[in-house]
Amino acid sequence: MSFITEDFLLYNPTGRRLYHEVARELPIVDYHNHLSPELLAENSPFEDPTELFIRSDPYKHRAMRMHGVPEGEITGDVGSRQLFDNWAATVPAVWGNPLHHWNALELHRVFGIEEPLSPQTAAPVWQTIRSRLQEDGFTPQGILTGFGVQTLCTSDDLLSDLTHHRRATAHGKLEVYPSLRGDTITGIDHHKFLRWLARLVEAAGTKVTDLDSYLAAVSHRLEDFAAAGCVLADHALNSGFRFYDAQESNARRTFDRVLRSEANPVRDIEALKSYLLVALGRCYAKRGWGMQLHVGAQRRTSARLRTLAGSAGGYASIGSPAHMESLAGLLDTIEGQGGLPDIVLYTLNPADNAAFGSLTGSFTEDGRPGKVQFGPAWWYNDQLGGIRDHLQTVANYGLLHHFIGMTTDSRSVMSFSRHEYFRRILCNLLGEWVETGHLPPSGDWLDQAVTNLCHGNARRWLDTKQRHHAQLES
Amino acid sequence: MSFITEDFLLYNPTGRRLYHEVARELPIVDYHNHLSPELLAENSPFEDPTELFIRSDPYKHRAMRMHGVPEGEITGDVGSRQLFDNWAATVPAVWGNPLHHWNALELHRVFGIEEPLSPQTAAPVWQTIRSRLQEDGFTPQGILTGFGVQTLCTSDDLLSDLTHHRRATAHGKLEVYPSLRGDTITGIDHHKFLRWLARLVEAAGTKVTDLDSYLAAVSHRLEDFAAAGCVLADHALNSGFRFYDAQESNARRTFDRVLRSEANPVRDIEALKSYLLVALGRCYAKRGWGMQLHVGAQRRTSARLRTLAGSAGGYASIGSPAHMESLAGLLDTIEGQGGLPDIVLYTLNPADNAAFGSLTGSFTEDGRPGKVQFGPAWWYNDQLGGIRDHLQTVANYGLLHHFIGMTTDSRSVMSFSRHEYFRRILCNLLGEWVETGHLPPSGDWLDQAVTNLCHGNARRWLDTKQRHHAQLES
Amino acid sequence: MSFITEDFLLYNPTGRRLYHEVARELPIVDYHNHLSPELLAENSPFEDPTELFIRSDPYKHRAMRMHGVPEGEITGDVGSRQLFDNWAATVPAVWGNPLHHWNALELHRVFGIEEPLSPQTAAPVWQTIRSRLQEDGFTPQGILTGFGVQTLCTSDDLLSDLTHHRRATAHGKLEVYPSLRGDTITGIDHHKFLRWLARLVEAAGTKVTDLDSYLAAVSHRLEDFAAAGCVLADHALNSGFRFYDAQESNARRTFDRVLRSEANPVRDIEALKSYLLVALGRCYAKRGWGMQLHVGAQRRTSARLRTLAGSAGGYASIGSPAHMESLAGLLDTIEGQGGLPDIVLYTLNPADNAAFGSLTGSFTEDGRPGKVQFGPAWWYNDQLGGIRDHLQTVANYGLLHHFIGMTTDSRSVMSFSRHEYFRRILCNLLGEWVETGHLPPSGDWLDQAVTNLCHGNARRWLDTKQRHHAQLES
Repeated sequence: MSFITEDFLLYNPTGRRLYHEVARELPIVDYHNHLSPELLAENSPFEDPTELFIRSDPYKHRAMRMHGVPEGEITGDVGSRQLFDNWAATVPAVWGNPLHHWNALELHRVFGIEEPLSPQTAAPVWQTIRSRLQEDGFTPQGILTGFGVQTLCTSDDLLSDLTHHRRATAHGKLEVYPSLRGDTITGIDHHKFLRWLARLVEAAGTKVTDLDSYLAAVSHRLEDFAAAGCVLADHALNSGFRFYDAQESNARRTFDRVLRSEANPVRDIEALKSYLLVALGRCYAKRGWGMQLHVGAQRRTSARLRTLAGSAGGYASIGSPAHMESLAGLLDTIEGQGGLPDIVLYTLNPADNAAFGSLTGSFTEDGRPGKVQFGPAWWYNDQLGGIRDHLQTVANYGLLHHFIGMTTDSRSVMSFSRHEYFRRILCNLLGEWVETGHLPPSGDWLDQAVTNLCHGNARRWLDTKQRHHAQLES
Repeated sequence: MSFITEDFLLYNPTGRRLYHEVARELPIVDYHNHLSPELLAENSPFEDPTELFIRSDPYKHRAMRMHGVPEGEITGDVGSRQLFDNWAATVPAVWGNPLHHWNALELHRVFGIEEPLSPQTAAPVWQTIRSRLQEDGFTPQGILTGFGVQTLCTSDDLLSDLTHHRRATAHGKLEVYPSLRGDTITGIDHHKFLRWLARLVEAAGTKVTDLDSYLAAVSHRLEDFAAAGCVLADHALNSGFRFYDAQESNARRTFDRVLRSEANPVRDIEALKSYLLVALGRCYAKRGWGMQLHVGAQRRTSARLRTLAGSAGGYASIGSPAHMESLAGLLDTIEGQGGLPDIVLYTLNPADNAAFGSLTGSFTEDGRPGKVQFGPAWWYNDQLGGIRDHLQTVANYGLLHHFIGMTTDSRSVMSFSRHEYFRRILCNLLGEWVETGHLPPSGDWLDQAVTNLCHGNARRWLDTKQRHHAQLES
Repeated sequence: MSFITEDFLLYNPTGRRLYHEVARELPIVDYHNHLSPELLAENSPFEDPTELFIRSDPYKHRAMRMHGVPEGEITGDVGSRQLFDNWAATVPAVWGNPLHHWNALELHRVFGIEEPLSPQTAAPVWQTIRSRLQEDGFTPQGILTGFGVQTLCTSDDLLSDLTHHRRATAHGKLEVYPSLRGDTITGIDHHKFLRWLARLVEAAGTKVTDLDSYLAAVSHRLEDFAAAGCVLADHALNSGFRFYDAQESNARRTFDRVLRSEANPVRDIEALKSYLLVALGRCYAKRGWGMQLHVGAQRRTSARLRTLAGSAGGYASIGSPAHMESLAGLLDTIEGQGGLPDIVLYTLNPADNAAFGSLTGSFTEDGRPGKVQFGPAWWYNDQLGGIRDHLQTVANYGLLHHFIGMTTDSRSVMSFSRHEYFRRILCNLLGEWVETGHLPPSGDWLDQAVTNLCHGNARRWLDTKQRHHAQLES
């Protein structure tokens, strides 16, 4: 019997009421995820259960590895049924980990499967799912619609094909917009940068001979993004990130050396990256976009796994606490050069929570409540304790009232069940606060707050940006 | 109806008994705050509600900003009533933040106002407060006396006027002592340092031609502080602080360059600051003073806000975790040069809690229990979760038994309601521990412990220092 | 009356059942402690209560210091009864600290003493213990057997006498194995290194003229450890630890300078240490040993106390958060040079918990579940809140299912009561999870999980390594 009951994670009457009467049916605005826009555009049925929810889910790969499943039977050339069985054999060992709840929620909500996945149940579960995958309700868009998804912002490289998003939206079920993953733009020390640059030159139809023409080419492509409905950008500031107030002349020289494939001192590379982040931040501000900063991943871990499983293989870990001076310096420098875009900060290290929460009150804009957001508990922190701690941090060190709420950052359509997870935890916490007198008695204000935190704030946050774009165009 | 009931935050019978029967009426010893000694000396009525509790409270400014109130209507040239209304419009958005509790407590305890402040109640609340501000009980000293304040140590620059404190004490209601804010002394790279130094030279009536004569002038002024009842000093070690074991000869050379307005390498400046901290620590130890270290503020954030709102504008944020090697090195070096003064450590980053808690057991003195203190949850951490976590840290990593308890670090007389807040959280936690068998059954020891943590430890900690001063003088 | 009741720390029926029916009687496998193998081999009665559980316990020394007991009466030339009384006078001030529970558990479990130790009870408690110390059940081995200890791995320098372990095991009550404390091997900048090296040369019977012959001598001695049953090594990576990918040629040159007592740049010393850690890690992997990394102690604190109390005096503190890039780099480099040994990570700074928990999923091995462990809450974190937080971290960021559980890291036979402490906290947490629907309903799986976490996982983890050794030998 499943432990995912009606009142899962809801431990007080107010929380239960808030979830069932207010939060449950609110449409989902998922402003940052890694769904494939092409998958959404095609909307073809999934081939089998493994293609649906295991093959593309690095969280599950990671758990199988920790359970001792050979890498070749996870990311290697392994058949769908075998991989499914490997996952089924791992599930009984993941209790206590969010995967235990996530996996149960996914099976329960999408397919009504209540019995826990295990080697004993693998065969019937495989059969049940497989037989339904041809139905309309279980295409990518079908599943997302089932979850109540209204709007999606995928994560796209500057050179990604932006036609998929319109095609995906054209199905009439949900809106799909690109958002810019800006890491290749600042990735001037990546061994593939010049190859990427050559493609950019082609796409933008301009020459890149120096820093100015580079930024012009980037900016040209940003217009394509804007035209496709993009209002958000995103940068990964990995563990060890330092911001340097870079001299423009120095940045130019460094970029020239990059173009000529000449070596640059590490410090100059970091300064050029800082310069580019500032330049991009200014662009985003001018366009009224939001700028997301994903801080603190430790990307270098096992080179062995990187070779076997590829760069998105789920073996990254949590880096050291963020260098707050750098983060504050970056925001201050962008602000000083003409204004800050709306900011969403994420950290992978929950030891940063209070510092990030407090930074949301250190940069503000007249008439712009919630200007700087501490985005939802990210990646490994997206679990019961992590979400709860994060919400408490946002409340204690900022204004929870203006929080734009949950986004999945996920690669799998099944994982949109995590909005339910977030909403249950949120409603339970607010209910607890009310019932212990930490908050005033329940009332319209509370229902309104839940509505805003689960939907309204994110909705308005995107709408404001899209209206800004419409005004720029007209 | 207010949610600030009789048993606010008290969730168990033992906790309720401890608060109402033991903690509630204990006099307040607030050993570190930023009240204006002149305000206390004058003891004039406040002009209006905004002057009373909004104009001088950067916490509230910060929340208004985050809520989107234009900066000009917060710290700009804005009328009292308008600013009051701006705050009233913000309050309904701060639920979950400590300001929600603080503001309700302030209005409830001082003016008996139970209805929450909001745009709907702004007019009557304004009226109620305004009409009472002329009464004796609502002067600065009246309000403090109402809270049960017995002793206050304000925070004063080396060149501050120390006559106010005696005048404030002369009212006969409470004792007001200066405490030394030492940051200008070590602020040798501040652009106003030489101007400040010129004033010091004048005040001390000596010449400053090198490091020795500088320290002599400082020391001369410390005698004035001691004569005015000062027994505490305080230094801000902002985010990024590093301690260097500085060579005396190098420190001398660096200071000479400071005097000649010549550039110094950053490392030399840091080393000179370290040298000065050690020299001052030795002075404090000799005089029997306590030395407070406020660690980890990220002062550089928005230059825009700094220009608009001034340096105490409430837009600082939490810095990276402290460099514990530097902190331990600083204490060790002072101790090695003749003995450590009593130390109070504060950190702005709660990720430091365990490290700070443990450091209290790494430096000790024969016959001096609680020699090194982990001071109360500071600034943004002075809230329900922050205080609770801090108390648990002090207990787990040190000896809560010897903790000197709460201080407000505040600029507003209204904020002394936070002692009540602290005491409720403390009593609730101890009650919980007793009732869950984490502590032995309630008894005299427990009442005594609460008395000490709310009052007795801080009282004796100050008294010991003042007796030491009296002995030095005699 | 003692507060250590039958159901101490067990707040739910499931937790109570798990503890009393499953966990309570499981044998203890303590894979990392600092018991004296000679003490265990001799198995002589303790001279008096102070020799039994105060003289060798730096935790208690630390608490006495914080309580103001003069250092001379703690670690100085102080009689046993006086030191006992000093501890008895301190106990009433340590409530809230783990020592309060530990001390009560020690007295209760070993001697049935229920009344709290205090100045009032010191005399009878002294008498009760003293009178029983001649009985068989209260020798070192008697006490350990009373706790249910099955296997011990002590911590031994490369040059330690390994004959004690076999003698200790020969008593037939429990197995005692050495484990390698590798810090002297990498301690090339320690002022006693060359003296230690001379002893190594003698012990190994080889010459050491360069890095290769040094590693050969070390390796020779590792064989002695293996022959004595050692399957674990351990390294302290103190606060500030950085890993550098060291060039072999550079490491050789640096080591040559060490041999010639010539100065080395700090960076070269760090690089050589990194090189040695990698070389040792490879050795451990080849032998099938586990490698423990104890990260984050701030060893330099009070030089005064170091002089008075010696280097293990209990005045170390918690360092800054770990440099995760270094930790990941170290593991990656070892793995890249032929495979990673089983790893156990410990951190002294609980702000590192999530990062450490996540690192356990970033290095894996086919067929080796739980390859990288986040070892139990270490040192100052080995308390109610610390253990609970740690277990939640292991679950949230890794797989609790494969956790090898508690080890004491202790110097005192009495402290094995902490396994009971750990088990109570674990059972209570799992019971809570089940009863709140966070985990599926209780069942065989849960009893099995408790058995594994309290005993089975550690047992198999050691057995696998010992079988590997047997295979290498055959």
